[in-house]
Amino acid sequence: MKPTPLLLLAMAALPGLAQTILSPEVGADRRVTFRFRAPNAKEVFLAREGAERLPMQKDEKGVWSVTTGVLEPDIYGYSFAADGVNLIDPLNPVMKPNLLNTTSAVHVPGPATLPWEVNDVPRGTLHRHFYKSAIAGDHRDYFVYTPPGYDPKAKKLYPVLCLLHGFSDDASGWTAVGRAHVILDNLIAQGKVKPMIVVMPLGYGTMEIVSRSAPPLRDPKLRKLSFERFRDALLKEVLPEVGKTYRVSKNRGQRAIAGLSMGGAESLFVGLNALDTFSWIGAFSSGGMGEDLNASFPKLDAKANAQLRLLWIACGKDDRLMDANRKFGEFLKSRGVRYTWIETAGAHTWLVWRRNLAEFAPLLF
Amino acid sequence: MKPTPLLLLAMAALPGLAQTILSPEVGADRRVTFRFRAPNAKEVFLAREGAERLPMQKDEKGVWSVTTGVLEPDIYGYSFAADGVNLIDPLNPVMKPNLLNTTSAVHVPGPATLPWEVNDVPRGTLHRHFYKSAIAGDHRDYFVYTPPGYDPKAKKLYPVLCLLHGFSDDASGWTAVGRAHVILDNLIAQGKVKPMIVVMPLGYGTMEIVSRSAPPLRDPKLRKLSFERFRDALLKEVLPEVGKTYRVSKNRGQRAIAGLSMGGAESLFVGLNALDTFSWIGAFSSGGMGEDLNASFPKLDAKANAQLRLLWIACGKDDRLMDANRKFGEFLKSRGVRYTWIETAGAHTWLVWRRNLAEFAPLLF
Repeated sequence: MKPTPLLLLAMAALPGLAQTILSPEVGADRRVTFRFRAPNAKEVFLAREGAERLPMQKDEKGVWSVTTGVLEPDIYGYSFAADGVNLIDPLNPVMKPNLLNTTSAVHVPGPATLPWEVNDVPRGTLHRHFYKSAIAGDHRDYFVYTPPGYDPKAKKLYPVLCLLHGFSDDASGWTAVGRAHVILDNLIAQGKVKPMIVVMPLGYGTMEIVSRSAPPLRDPKLRKLSFERFRDALLKEVLPEVGKTYRVSKNRGQRAIAGLSMGGAESLFVGLNALDTFSWIGAFSSGGMGEDLNASFPKLDAKANAQLRLLWIACGKDDRLMDANRKFGEFLKSRGVRYTWIETAGAHTWLVWRRNLAEFAPLLF
Repeated sequence: MKPTPLLLLAMAALPGLAQTILSPEVGADRRVTFRFRAPNAKEVFLAREGAERLPMQKDEKGVWSVTTGVLEPDIYGYSFAADGVNLIDPLNPVMKPNLLNTTSAVHVPGPATLPWEVNDVPRGTLHRHFYKSAIAGDHRDYFVYTPPGYDPKAKKLYPVLCLLHGFSDDASGWTAVGRAHVILDNLIAQGKVKPMIVVMPLGYGTMEIVSRSAPPLRDPKLRKLSFERFRDALLKEVLPEVGKTYRVSKNRGQRAIAGLSMGGAESLFVGLNALDTFSWIGAFSSGGMGEDLNASFPKLDAKANAQLRLLWIACGKDDRLMDANRKFGEFLKSRGVRYTWIETAGAHTWLVWRRNLAEFAPLLF
């Protein structure tokens, strides 16, 4: 029988019966020790987000461990690659949830000025809504962030940011992993970001695109179907319902759409084709724009410049999607559309996207 | 490097390069096949919630698998015990989150009449609030369920159920694992449950009690400290804030408190000592009431019968805490306090507690 929590407690109460292994252990010097018991594994590596993997060493009790160098304060996804299989750290309740590849996560704390650190500031609220989508044909959810002091009975109307997750994340991604609510709480408290309502929908027009046995995102037909149904679900189902439930402005000058990776491509696809609805667009490390940009953006031309308040395209220097983003920039130039180009440090990781949000949100509204 | 989602996609696009292993695979006959690659493990068992563990068999590719018998429709936590280490299924994004022992979970679908199945009914909303607790001295959260059709601008006041998780769960437990929001949506749609607001706080007065290296719940001093601070945080911080934010009745006849395991013991401790606040109490598989019941309930006597609308004490026949619950019943009898005693099938598992909620909620208000 699997030990239940109370049985574990009983074991912990009897010295010597349970061996307490801690993982991860974050040192005061910001070196992190990871431990994983796998007595018969032949080789185990630590695979950490944004880093080369590190070999772990086994002790006489079958516990593999490794201590990193000094890490920059951040939140890092990681897993243990044991004989070629990526495993979640069974000793760590902190996860980086993902539909195809859930990993563990470790927080290396830093100064209060880092935007993702929880501070003693007024806090916003997260609301999770559930509905049956007629367009996608399934039961799904979306999250809404309301800023500190939001009062549904007050007259004030708030601007709206639609914030889209990446491929294989779900609607919880921007908060569970991205800490968008913490970042906004902090920046609002500092007066750097205008209080806004953030809508975080599920980014798939069909869940088929993210099933393990289905064709991948680069299947052009399935990609197109998913993007188009996602757009319709957002514009015809989610945003109208948000408009009924929350005090949101219907003025296009008060509407933004942004996202990361697949969500960046969706922000470009939805936003640039709906400039009557959005005037601020952000695309972080975009991927999945498709091969035929002319087909995806048939009417886009220099008239967009008068409608766009911001078209912000960011990518990390080490991101394998840099070329695709440069190519998209060239496409915009060919259509006479102006945009802001941001090259940051980093690869295709959440370390980049949390910083993207903290840089992008202050520019809005 | 760990394969990223887009790399996995690329691999899946090249037949033969990636071998797709599915786990869990739920058959139409409700047999479930679990698969786990661990080429060098010596023995692997499937450890499933509420069941004896099953040995898994290894194939020539190092993939261990087992197919269960026909399972009753339900949601089952499980893990793979590989050479004595409980591991999360790396192929399954569905989790049973827990601070000390996160496991995977598999849903064996059943008829729409099962209260935890998502149906085409009006859906309530989950709200996650964040605050700094002066009493506990930390940043924490609580969840609030509002029923379908809840309107913060309407005059109607709703009854309130405080619903408490068990030891080693967190504030998300009753929704992420217990599906309380789905159960209430369904029973409200059927007219069996009155629309109510459900408050789900973090159940620890101090996080020390749930840290891996701290003394366990059965340390009497730490248990008492945690219970008392939890009570104070609920009554002095959470409920007043809920009263400001939501349309809730302040009438004690419209206030219930219930919970499972540690949360059951907390419901008894908080509720029976605050009959001016609560008149409905539910305790599911309670554990952690402490040894000295006279000290915990100094003033409890037969006068409580006039104040209590319901004192509902449930335990599964196979629960190792049955004796503690019977003992608590004897204590109530010794004080002249009447209660409803419910013995169900099952052990100390969520299979029991989802059914407890579905049976208890219709009795309220």
